Amino acid sequence: MNAVASINDYMQALGQRARAASRAMARASSATRNRALELIAQAIEREADALRAANRQDMDAALANGLAPALLDRLALSDKAIATMIEGLRQIVALPDPVGEISNMKTRPTGIQVGQMRVPLGVIGIIYEARPNVTVDAAGLCIKSGNATILRGGSEAIHCNRALAKIVKAALLEAGLPEDGVQVVDTTDRAAVGALITMPQYVDVIVPRGGKSLIARLMQEATVPMIKHLDGICHVYIDAKADLQKALDIGFNAKCHRYGTCNTMETLLVDRAVAASILPALAQRYLTEQVELRADEASYAILEGAAYPHLVRATEEDWSTEYLAPILAVKVVDGIDAAMDHINTWSSKHTEAIVTEDYSAAMRFLREVDSASVMVNASTRFADGFEYGLGAEIGISNDKLHARGPVGLEGLTSLKYVVFGHGETRK
Amino acid sequence: MNAVASINDYMQALGQRARAASRAMARASSATRNRALELIAQAIEREADALRAANRQDMDAALANGLAPALLDRLALSDKAIATMIEGLRQIVALPDPVGEISNMKTRPTGIQVGQMRVPLGVIGIIYEARPNVTVDAAGLCIKSGNATILRGGSEAIHCNRALAKIVKAALLEAGLPEDGVQVVDTTDRAAVGALITMPQYVDVIVPRGGKSLIARLMQEATVPMIKHLDGICHVYIDAKADLQKALDIGFNAKCHRYGTCNTMETLLVDRAVAASILPALAQRYLTEQVELRADEASYAILEGAAYPHLVRATEEDWSTEYLAPILAVKVVDGIDAAMDHINTWSSKHTEAIVTEDYSAAMRFLREVDSASVMVNASTRFADGFEYGLGAEIGISNDKLHARGPVGLEGLTSLKYVVFGHGETRK
Repeated sequence: MNAVASINDYMQALGQRARAASRAMARASSATRNRALELIAQAIEREADALRAANRQDMDAALANGLAPALLDRLALSDKAIATMIEGLRQIVALPDPVGEISNMKTRPTGIQVGQMRVPLGVIGIIYEARPNVTVDAAGLCIKSGNATILRGGSEAIHCNRALAKIVKAALLEAGLPEDGVQVVDTTDRAAVGALITMPQYVDVIVPRGGKSLIARLMQEATVPMIKHLDGICHVYIDAKADLQKALDIGFNAKCHRYGTCNTMETLLVDRAVAASILPALAQRYLTEQVELRADEASYAILEGAAYPHLVRATEEDWSTEYLAPILAVKVVDGIDAAMDHINTWSSKHTEAIVTEDYSAAMRFLREVDSASVMVNASTRFADGFEYGLGAEIGISNDKLHARGPVGLEGLTSLKYVVFGHGETRK
Repeated sequence: MNAVASINDYMQALGQRARAASRAMARASSATRNRALELIAQAIEREADALRAANRQDMDAALANGLAPALLDRLALSDKAIATMIEGLRQIVALPDPVGEISNMKTRPTGIQVGQMRVPLGVIGIIYEARPNVTVDAAGLCIKSGNATILRGGSEAIHCNRALAKIVKAALLEAGLPEDGVQVVDTTDRAAVGALITMPQYVDVIVPRGGKSLIARLMQEATVPMIKHLDGICHVYIDAKADLQKALDIGFNAKCHRYGTCNTMETLLVDRAVAASILPALAQRYLTEQVELRADEASYAILEGAAYPHLVRATEEDWSTEYLAPILAVKVVDGIDAAMDHINTWSSKHTEAIVTEDYSAAMRFLREVDSASVMVNASTRFADGFEYGLGAEIGISNDKLHARGPVGLEGLTSLKYVVFGHGETRK
């Protein structure tokens, strides 16, 4: 038997155990699931030294392998990261239980009562890169929502993830839940990922958390549905009727609050009617952050006139580029229709905002822009599970089916129909 | 250029036009969409003779090709079928508009207001077999829900579908909608289906309506998500605390009301405590329909004792067979846990029912059985969009993501986040 075949067997066994455990996870009471979360939090507190030691092993190996500083940074399990994991678990405990809620119950003319019950999806596969804290965050959300989980973290974090898995399994057992409710894939072999994303009989949904290249690769091969987004090419459109102050605040915040996040603005659209007055004022703000502006012809002329120093001519490629950097594509458009055309053509369907005081323009933008989050007079940076009040976020979806936008506990559940009858039969 | 390549080009062009039309469909008012539906109904009434002539062409060709009588029956466009299409359209007009509804609007501590707006999915692909009435039903539901549609009917119905397409396009134009809002694939080449299910850039979801073999084939190849179910292996479990009368009524109705439907019971589970008293009484009912009972060891002994004439020993294969015929698998189980184990192992996750007067058994069954519809004291035959009050049904989904169970207009929409701000920026 070759190595891939044996990894496949290993993953099949993992999947089978997850499927079996998912039934007990689904029927566990709220109190039991919350107790497991609290026990994990306590164990992390108690065994912080052991976790630090495991993380040191990972860090030493990563240093020896010459891992890039940015990745080393993500791999590190600082005291603050430990405290945040514990705090995160307790926040999840405090969230309302999504499982078992019945809604839309209606009595039909036949006498049956029909409603929908929120139930766990079953088995969630999480694929992520170095960060060990994802192990605990993701396990926490899956336990809370009554799902079994298979976690596949970055190979760089294997020692720390093993230590965390031990803690989680002990807590599940102590709470009276199956230890297979959360399983960490205990091999760094890449074939494990290939197996995980192609066993729909054992895994109901995959949540990939990581860079664009990871997700693009998974999209090619996965036969299990994914809750995912590939990138965030977010737009702000400054309408002819925009309030100047709001346009400046939102235009600056959406780009410069943080550069590396998927809800950061990457293209600014400005109505021709106000471009000459707004762009120079906005450029003064961008100058404080030395933002490079990649401008179309009309905006280039205006910004050149305003002597903006970091000015580059935009090419078509800029409309589909996620810079994740102090770079912004800028385009002058003829009104809201041209703005929405541009957005519906180039956007990654993540988040778009209009700045306007015009009621009809706001309503049209909300209705007609086909993205997961659509905003009026707010920074795109608000597109986030915590900011939306979901309490926690397992990921963000740019897809339209199932969960769309920031995904919290509800996205890890489904609605099944429940029927209360009294002996009714079909006539 | 070979034939498949040119079919591919044809389908790509269709997809591109559908995507473009979907924007106008999505922003059209309720009144406009309803007017288009009413115009289609009127045109079908007015042009019934032309439709009958087109159908006759299809029927003649089908007879010449030796099509099976059951398929001929589905292909025929009777006066009743025409009247039903018209009535169906008017029922869709009367349904509430799902598009644009905003729910869960909440004000966050930052000042932004966050809610969810129901919006069309975009482009729906429908793949179906001979029945020409599906062309009108499916187009009607997609127009109502603000989607563009690509319809690929059975090649046997091509003349009738062309005639219907002409009517639909004229009605769309007259209502002020793009005629590409509904497109009928005008080729009988099978490569068209292969293209339709692999262009996620133009098609948001595929709804296959047809037999198991069609859907199984599509599942192998589709890269576009599907709203589908493969089969309906539905169970009724008669609990130890079942009311005898309800058990007899539901046990008979779930099997014998109609044999060819996906919500028909295929396996009956009976608690050992009541098997000897209930099975003989139920068998008397089945005898009126000469239902073949495929019995496990324990139920075989009981039914043999009752001298049931159509008795066969069950094999393991029976637990996973959808008979669509007067045949029923029967098994005696030791209590609700054994019943749920059997169901969660063998069910196709379509619909299951428990017959019981025991409150805790009912609640456990509802919560723990992992199927799209779960019922207490009601016939599985109620699992249907009309019976559930959805008003219309585009299909049934056994999947857990997005739509689950009977799928109506809501299943053709998604929820996007909308944010009302007042100039807020992220701190």
